[in-house]
Amino acid sequence: MKPNFTLRLRVFNLNCWGIPYLSKHRADRVKRLGDFLNLESFDLALLEEVWSEQDFQYLRQKLLPTYPAAHYFRSGIIGSGLCVFSKHSIQEFTQHVFTLNGYPYMLHAEYNRQKDIYLAHRVAQAWELAQFIHHTSKKADVVLLCGDLNLHPKDLGCRLLKEWTGLHDAYLETRDFKGSEEGCTMVPKNCYVKQQDLGPFPLGIRIDYVLYKAVSGLYISCKTLKTTTGHDPYSGPPFSDHEALMATLCVRHSPPQHNPSPTHGPAESSPLTSVLREAWAEVDQGMAQARWWATVAGYAIGLGLLLLALLCALAAGGWIREAALLLWTPSVGLVLGAGAFYLFHVQEAKSLCKTRTELQHVLGRAREAQDLGPESQPALLLGQQEGDRVEEQ
Amino acid sequence: MKPNFTLRLRVFNLNCWGIPYLSKHRADRVKRLGDFLNLESFDLALLEEVWSEQDFQYLRQKLLPTYPAAHYFRSGIIGSGLCVFSKHSIQEFTQHVFTLNGYPYMLHAEYNRQKDIYLAHRVAQAWELAQFIHHTSKKADVVLLCGDLNLHPKDLGCRLLKEWTGLHDAYLETRDFKGSEEGCTMVPKNCYVKQQDLGPFPLGIRIDYVLYKAVSGLYISCKTLKTTTGHDPYSGPPFSDHEALMATLCVRHSPPQHNPSPTHGPAESSPLTSVLREAWAEVDQGMAQARWWATVAGYAIGLGLLLLALLCALAAGGWIREAALLLWTPSVGLVLGAGAFYLFHVQEAKSLCKTRTELQHVLGRAREAQDLGPESQPALLLGQQEGDRVEEQ
Repeated sequence: MKPNFTLRLRVFNLNCWGIPYLSKHRADRVKRLGDFLNLESFDLALLEEVWSEQDFQYLRQKLLPTYPAAHYFRSGIIGSGLCVFSKHSIQEFTQHVFTLNGYPYMLHAEYNRQKDIYLAHRVAQAWELAQFIHHTSKKADVVLLCGDLNLHPKDLGCRLLKEWTGLHDAYLETRDFKGSEEGCTMVPKNCYVKQQDLGPFPLGIRIDYVLYKAVSGLYISCKTLKTTTGHDPYSGPPFSDHEALMATLCVRHSPPQHNPSPTHGPAESSPLTSVLREAWAEVDQGMAQARWWATVAGYAIGLGLLLLALLCALAAGGWIREAALLLWTPSVGLVLGAGAFYLFHVQEAKSLCKTRTELQHVLGRAREAQDLGPESQPALLLGQQEGDRVEEQ
Repeated sequence: MKPNFTLRLRVFNLNCWGIPYLSKHRADRVKRLGDFLNLESFDLALLEEVWSEQDFQYLRQKLLPTYPAAHYFRSGIIGSGLCVFSKHSIQEFTQHVFTLNGYPYMLHAEYNRQKDIYLAHRVAQAWELAQFIHHTSKKADVVLLCGDLNLHPKDLGCRLLKEWTGLHDAYLETRDFKGSEEGCTMVPKNCYVKQQDLGPFPLGIRIDYVLYKAVSGLYISCKTLKTTTGHDPYSGPPFSDHEALMATLCVRHSPPQHNPSPTHGPAESSPLTSVLREAWAEVDQGMAQARWWATVAGYAIGLGLLLLALLCALAAGGWIREAALLLWTPSVGLVLGAGAFYLFHVQEAKSLCKTRTELQHVLGRAREAQDLGPESQPALLLGQQEGDRVEEQ
């Protein structure tokens, strides 16, 4: 980028709710979304929950003239559901799969905010995402993080992510916002949103984000941010059960006249330390719980094996032979099920332990910085995520 | 680092063969290793296959005065077995778990080199490792990759890794090598190595490496490289079934007088393209095979379900009731086993497909560069892994 040049970047983001057979009016919504993206010709269109590769291929064909570059991120058994369409060529792509992904045996993920059983996982994921950004963006010009984070703005995971990476929230930074109240991205006005989806937030929730930062001596600001408001931009039926986000970002060499996001200073080391401590405590508690479940599963395995031995003895002795044979399958099932449960929770505990160690290391470095006196504190503590900027400015 | 300053880095690497209950003389070997590391006082000691966390904690205590910083990498169910001891403080650490890790149902991993069923996995892992280094080291001063790669120097995975990252092999680069013949790190002289471990290589194999490169305008060279030769450095019993590597690296601002590793030039774009093509073909074949196994598993699931339905009908009708009940468990087992097999191979196919797409993207960019003419080819093709160096020199 030439000095004094301003780059305008128009970004579109939507969680598409594209589950084959389950999501309503999928084909029609994907078709209308394609028409809209072609018409608007964004620089980048980032889509989540495109679970069917056919949908991606349909959009790829349709958007080819306007967005010559595209990528569908494949992973795991059902895929990631993520894809990107770009007006500009894609130099490189990479992909990171979270270590922890909730509990496979909980089919209905309850989003109970009073007693969120996933909290430790969410915090661990937020930390993993923050670390991924931290380690891969050291020589980037600009970092953009868009998508459905399944986190409210005040949630621990969201605060941790923002504090550790220094990413700015387009909704909070822009002076020109048009869209749903409080920037909500799931709103009751949307015909696909059921009241129970919103739980204790009947007016709507904000869980989809456009986050950004500039790294190598550049400046980035959010000129405008728009969301859809429960229907598509032509007041027709909505594209999805989530609202779309449309941001216009400005990247330049000189700081913008109004700079709503000053670089972090000494005063900011305190919220970072406190959010790190909060995360540490949460992950520590999750780890203790995971170990407890692993122990319970260990006892269940023992019980199942005992039962199996008893049944074998009964069947061999000729007593209640039929009952013993009938009970054989559930007993084997118990042992196998408890075994899988055990392995899952052992792995969960190890993953949370890994996260806790990483958080502890960062907190330890913060403490060292404090011992060296308040002068050197921001440099040492923020050195990790702000180092690039400080060095190159 | 100040200009004209030369940094000498002494690095130790060993696959410790530390499997609780299975590895012979583990406690004694760990104790002697600790004594040696304390005496030699390396800058970095990198250990693999430290499977018992107690062994790590023992070394941590013992090495604390000489190596104040240490880290044990936890992951998965059995852990990674990796740990690091450092004379200097560790600023940050991160960890990446491979997407593909062989076949869980193959208990005895056969290292048949004529028909290596793991070849596609090895290539995918080498690519993932190369991409991890590529994406996380853009602002590094120096990159060191040490350890047991389970790859011979001429293996596709090893060539792909070296070509794509630009890492240099200490054994090939140094002018001062002392140790086992051809730099082998598993040798028949080692009393823990059985002849069958070496397969068709009775004289030994080289699968442990010290690889390095400098990034931001620095220069690195390998002054000396030593390996143990089937016993410990005091001619006592060996530390492990692998030989240890000890390298002295020199990092400086000005190029060394003898520079055995010139920066990549246009002539080198061809081996990179050819190794990328070879990797693509291998991964593509692995993907086809994974899909075939998924299909076979699909048929097995169908068969199992059919059998279950038949048994239910027989038991309900009162015919050969006991036999039906006896066959119930194996049928359920067949369905569950085939199901797990199916899920594994679907996930394998997706992961290989992801690797293939990434390789294809890189090859596509190489072709674009070729279309633009030979002048721009090295810049575009090597721009990805050599960009940092070119920019900052």
